[in-house]
Amino acid sequence: MDWGTDLWDQYDGIDKHTQSGLDLVDRYVKFVRERTEIEQNYAKQLRNLSKKYLKRGSKEEQECGFTNHQSFQDIVNELNDYAGQRELIAENMMTGICVELTKYLQDLKQERKTYLADAKKAQQNLEISFKQLENTKRRFAKEWGEAEKATQQAEKIENDTNAVKADVEKVKQHAHVKTHTAEECRNDYAAQLQKYNKEQNTFYYTEIPQLFNKLQDMDERRIRCLAEGYSQFAEVEKKVLPIITKCLDGISMAGTPCGFIEQHKSGFERPAEVDFEDYSQGIKPASSDANLNQPKIRTKLWPFSHKKTKVCTLHTTPYTLTYVRHQPQPT
Amino acid sequence: MDWGTDLWDQYDGIDKHTQSGLDLVDRYVKFVRERTEIEQNYAKQLRNLSKKYLKRGSKEEQECGFTNHQSFQDIVNELNDYAGQRELIAENMMTGICVELTKYLQDLKQERKTYLADAKKAQQNLEISFKQLENTKRRFAKEWGEAEKATQQAEKIENDTNAVKADVEKVKQHAHVKTHTAEECRNDYAAQLQKYNKEQNTFYYTEIPQLFNKLQDMDERRIRCLAEGYSQFAEVEKKVLPIITKCLDGISMAGTPCGFIEQHKSGFERPAEVDFEDYSQGIKPASSDANLNQPKIRTKLWPFSHKKTKVCTLHTTPYTLTYVRHQPQPT
Repeated sequence: MDWGTDLWDQYDGIDKHTQSGLDLVDRYVKFVRERTEIEQNYAKQLRNLSKKYLKRGSKEEQECGFTNHQSFQDIVNELNDYAGQRELIAENMMTGICVELTKYLQDLKQERKTYLADAKKAQQNLEISFKQLENTKRRFAKEWGEAEKATQQAEKIENDTNAVKADVEKVKQHAHVKTHTAEECRNDYAAQLQKYNKEQNTFYYTEIPQLFNKLQDMDERRIRCLAEGYSQFAEVEKKVLPIITKCLDGISMAGTPCGFIEQHKSGFERPAEVDFEDYSQGIKPASSDANLNQPKIRTKLWPFSHKKTKVCTLHTTPYTLTYVRHQPQPT
Repeated sequence: MDWGTDLWDQYDGIDKHTQSGLDLVDRYVKFVRERTEIEQNYAKQLRNLSKKYLKRGSKEEQECGFTNHQSFQDIVNELNDYAGQRELIAENMMTGICVELTKYLQDLKQERKTYLADAKKAQQNLEISFKQLENTKRRFAKEWGEAEKATQQAEKIENDTNAVKADVEKVKQHAHVKTHTAEECRNDYAAQLQKYNKEQNTFYYTEIPQLFNKLQDMDERRIRCLAEGYSQFAEVEKKVLPIITKCLDGISMAGTPCGFIEQHKSGFERPAEVDFEDYSQGIKPASSDANLNQPKIRTKLWPFSHKKTKVCTLHTTPYTLTYVRHQPQPT
């Protein structure tokens, strides 16, 4: 089945159908372009989110030493990669579908315009030829009618015994001329008919089928191209699915927090029992409270410091605590 | 390794670390909530796009009969399903991560507050006890000093030959009382020391380790819960990947357009050759042009109608064309 054979009399239908086909391509390109904008916007928002939660600088670097902090940073980083994949989808849709189809669409529009104009021109030519045929036929009918009338008149006068011979000759001559003219018109009509039928045959069996088949071919190419565009729409995204899956795998489960104890362990033993200082056995009380337990100051550590309350001199001073933290000196 | 043993003197570190841990959960919840909003916004935009390009009504239904139009509608429909999956991701992230973690976070905050307050209270109690110990020790040292002084004075007077016996007795009595008081203070100090050392032992080896281990347990639960939240972040999306892949598969490749020829084929044969009408053989010309080819009007079809130019009576009238199109009468 082809348009040239089956739809020879459906110029308007073909006109409408091919236009609708090109409109569909146009509509699809617009659809994909809008999808592309949505993807770009989505990717941008994901990137901003990632940027917002990605820690920078040395202050946080230490904190990131703990697995659960690091895992969060990993997630944030993977989300950024994920956003990159969405951008890739947008980009590939734009170049692989929108740009390609738009370029192709321009060619198809021009091609269609040419074929339809050619078909119209061919029909106009045939119509002109048909009008000429009608004219020659009408002239033949008219001339033949007049010739018959003239012949009948000539016969009538010839049979009239009262007729003047010169008149008879004149009428007969007239009838003869008329008949001759009519026969010439008959030949013209026959020639024009032959010409027209040849043209009509060419028109219906060669020109129109060829043009309509070209339009069909064009329409089928359009459909294949559009189908490719449809397919691309899914393929572009399918292509990044493995990478997206990898991004998701990258968001690995956070482990237990190693590092915190190692980082904070002072290494000191807990305070020993307080000794009995037996002044009755000759031990002299220290001159000031500050020096009372001087030799033991390093082991006298409380679980927490007194930042808000006055620091008791018996306890570690904040300075000592800081010193101890950074350079543990295990006993 | 546990906090109670290794970090017994790191209250501040534990305070900071557990706070930072809860802050991280809070931060993660905020991060996921923002991601959820992005997903919802993305899904909404996809839904709007789908809505915009989804054809409705009977006018387009016919057009959709062609595969490439139908395929586009399929894509638009699949995109709508795809948007539904993104909404599902947003919803599952919100309920599975944000709601869960927020609820859990409240409990953890309360738990942490209680443990830290208990630790602080225990230390305050021990400090009070220590101050009491210092007081009894200081009093013992002072009383013992005074007793020694009184004893020395008594010995000095006793050895003084000029001393009045009554005075000697008085001084000796005083020294005796002083010594007795000093011995009582010594006993008080010893008792307070025993009490303090017992309390200190309980504090460093029972109370603080228990509280710090509870905090460690809490922190480890927080981390497991957060790790579960991290995992959810990827799992929620991974779970819909097969459906998304199905949506993408649903965007099937568009086939060739069947239906157009069947729908538009008139079934008429192309015009036969125009016959020679030989008026010279007795055929009478029709009285008017309009009736010239009357019997053949059905076969006289042009590929396209003349909507813009005057309809030639020899050709099919628009009415006939319409009639023919809808009820093909093949010859």
